[in-house]
Amino acid sequence: MKIQELDTPALVIDLDRVESNLAKMADYCRRHDLNLRPHTKTHKMPALAKKQVEHGASGITVAKLGEAEIMIEAGLDHLLVAYPIVGRAKADRLAALCERAEMTVALDSFESAGFVAESTRNRGVKAGILVEVDVGFRRCGLQDDQAALRLAERILDYRSLEFRGFLFYPGSYVTQETEEEHFSQVNASLERLLESFRKRGIAVGIVSGGSTPTARFSHRFSGLTEIRPGTYIFNDRNTALHGAASLDDCAATVLVTVVSKAVPGKVIVDGASKTFSSDPCLAGSTGFGVIREDPDAVFVAMNEEHGHLDISRSVRNYSIGEKLTIIPNHICATVNLHNEVFFARGQSVESTCPVAARGKIR
Amino acid sequence: MKIQELDTPALVIDLDRVESNLAKMADYCRRHDLNLRPHTKTHKMPALAKKQVEHGASGITVAKLGEAEIMIEAGLDHLLVAYPIVGRAKADRLAALCERAEMTVALDSFESAGFVAESTRNRGVKAGILVEVDVGFRRCGLQDDQAALRLAERILDYRSLEFRGFLFYPGSYVTQETEEEHFSQVNASLERLLESFRKRGIAVGIVSGGSTPTARFSHRFSGLTEIRPGTYIFNDRNTALHGAASLDDCAATVLVTVVSKAVPGKVIVDGASKTFSSDPCLAGSTGFGVIREDPDAVFVAMNEEHGHLDISRSVRNYSIGEKLTIIPNHICATVNLHNEVFFARGQSVESTCPVAARGKIR
Repeated sequence: MKIQELDTPALVIDLDRVESNLAKMADYCRRHDLNLRPHTKTHKMPALAKKQVEHGASGITVAKLGEAEIMIEAGLDHLLVAYPIVGRAKADRLAALCERAEMTVALDSFESAGFVAESTRNRGVKAGILVEVDVGFRRCGLQDDQAALRLAERILDYRSLEFRGFLFYPGSYVTQETEEEHFSQVNASLERLLESFRKRGIAVGIVSGGSTPTARFSHRFSGLTEIRPGTYIFNDRNTALHGAASLDDCAATVLVTVVSKAVPGKVIVDGASKTFSSDPCLAGSTGFGVIREDPDAVFVAMNEEHGHLDISRSVRNYSIGEKLTIIPNHICATVNLHNEVFFARGQSVESTCPVAARGKIR
Repeated sequence: MKIQELDTPALVIDLDRVESNLAKMADYCRRHDLNLRPHTKTHKMPALAKKQVEHGASGITVAKLGEAEIMIEAGLDHLLVAYPIVGRAKADRLAALCERAEMTVALDSFESAGFVAESTRNRGVKAGILVEVDVGFRRCGLQDDQAALRLAERILDYRSLEFRGFLFYPGSYVTQETEEEHFSQVNASLERLLESFRKRGIAVGIVSGGSTPTARFSHRFSGLTEIRPGTYIFNDRNTALHGAASLDDCAATVLVTVVSKAVPGKVIVDGASKTFSSDPCLAGSTGFGVIREDPDAVFVAMNEEHGHLDISRSVRNYSIGEKLTIIPNHICATVNLHNEVFFARGQSVESTCPVAARGKIR
């Protein structure tokens, strides 16, 4: 089947572009001697996680245990849960997974460490722990080296926990203007941390940072051993606008159909916030995606199922029933709305794939 | 099980509040002699659609055929597809549904009418048609009475189509300041339409308008016979801020857990854009929801799985592991992210219910 024959809206994954994106990141990591542990929240599909491992990933990252369960069921066996495990129910699920895969979890509180320690001890398993530190993003993460030391020492006290190092989220986009300041600030934090741990004689095996927007700068972080980019497998309008990829590197697009052109200056397409998410453009631009067939059309507004394209500055002729290709602002949020995707090469659809970990928010 | 014992994030539906919301809308419609054809895109659950019919709805509305298929499979039998059917594949699916239920579809183009006419004729069935007109929202809908007349006459020519009347979307929120202008503008359009059809001798059985935000004003639309509110079954922060309901009428809330408080002035909860959607607050306010337990906390930012609460103006003590109740900005987009919901009365969870039509975007 050809892509143009798909019923719409349909999320189409270009496998040639996926493989090129995976190869580029693996090459960067090899050149800079960094482990690659891609965040699979972007695609939520075990088939693509396996492709990442084939392309040199040393394991995968997930946010939620529900995602981990799906990935382990499919055979993935080295997982980092980059999200604090809180509560008995979740700690018990994590401990059960420790019997089936090599598990590491990031956390930033005595409470979370206590939950994980109790459940792993009860089950007779061990969990690897990264202490999350904040280097400026202000989300999770301990605020200074002393707080990190106190938590690491508590973790070292628990026999069912193994302290492995630090995790941080390097923050959002780095621009040329903010680049020097960003690295000097983050590196000052990292160096202070590493020095404090060295003085106290605590070995730090892993320093895990690095997202897609900052990935290409990762070798400039002090002491970094591993990166966790997610979006790079597909890329999207935001990564392209921020210079982390080109629009041509975007491997995931949504095929939509023009369903109405009754209102002058507009066409309505059959995908909107329930197909693309409402995530805005983060790069100072507006709109909800790029229309590959018409750079002069603006994806200007969305209701739930009605996508509004402003074509007032376009000379293209639109007809009801024709299909268009849209690159979303934020592909992670887009994938999470779809029950399945269509894998393609060139113009041919090869197969469909369920988004197995979609909606696994627990 | 008690609500507080649910693992999080969990979308909890308060059935007492649902039934009160349904009863109020049914009562309004009875008083004003309006048919009620609720839009089920809000909940996507056949069990709740049936509850709406029990509360006096004369049928239901859907946006996409995938939703219609789920609802018909569950026994619903009077459906309006308030979305233009375009393309052979979709027209064939619609025709198949005409064998199983009483189907009406809204459209605004000769092309869409042609697709539906051909598929229904081939299958030997009839579809009811509403011509969509634009009364100012500028989304779908023909622009004037003459264009509507031309399309209605074409529809009357097709033996497998039955022209039933008009559909319009009354637009977003009406405020006290814009109320008079809004109704005089919309009513001028509607009256012109009805007069043109009367003169041409074409009977108009249905004039379908009315959304949740405008529902309480529906009796002021000229010639209106039916309303299609969706959100009213649950309500949300947006409907409350616009005065269409109170916060206490909000029947759908998300239970979340505090997972980090490492950053001063903040707590992080375990639900964010993949749990609530990124839909903004439409009422000139900011943030992504209301925290029932703490009116001084602001749901200030979201990543995919990290919800950021700004507690810098709150005196409440937060502890890691405690559960909080959040009223989302936009409940339709929220429900569409969840694989299942939890039905509750008071503090007790009665059952879980799959969101059967979730992700049915085609």
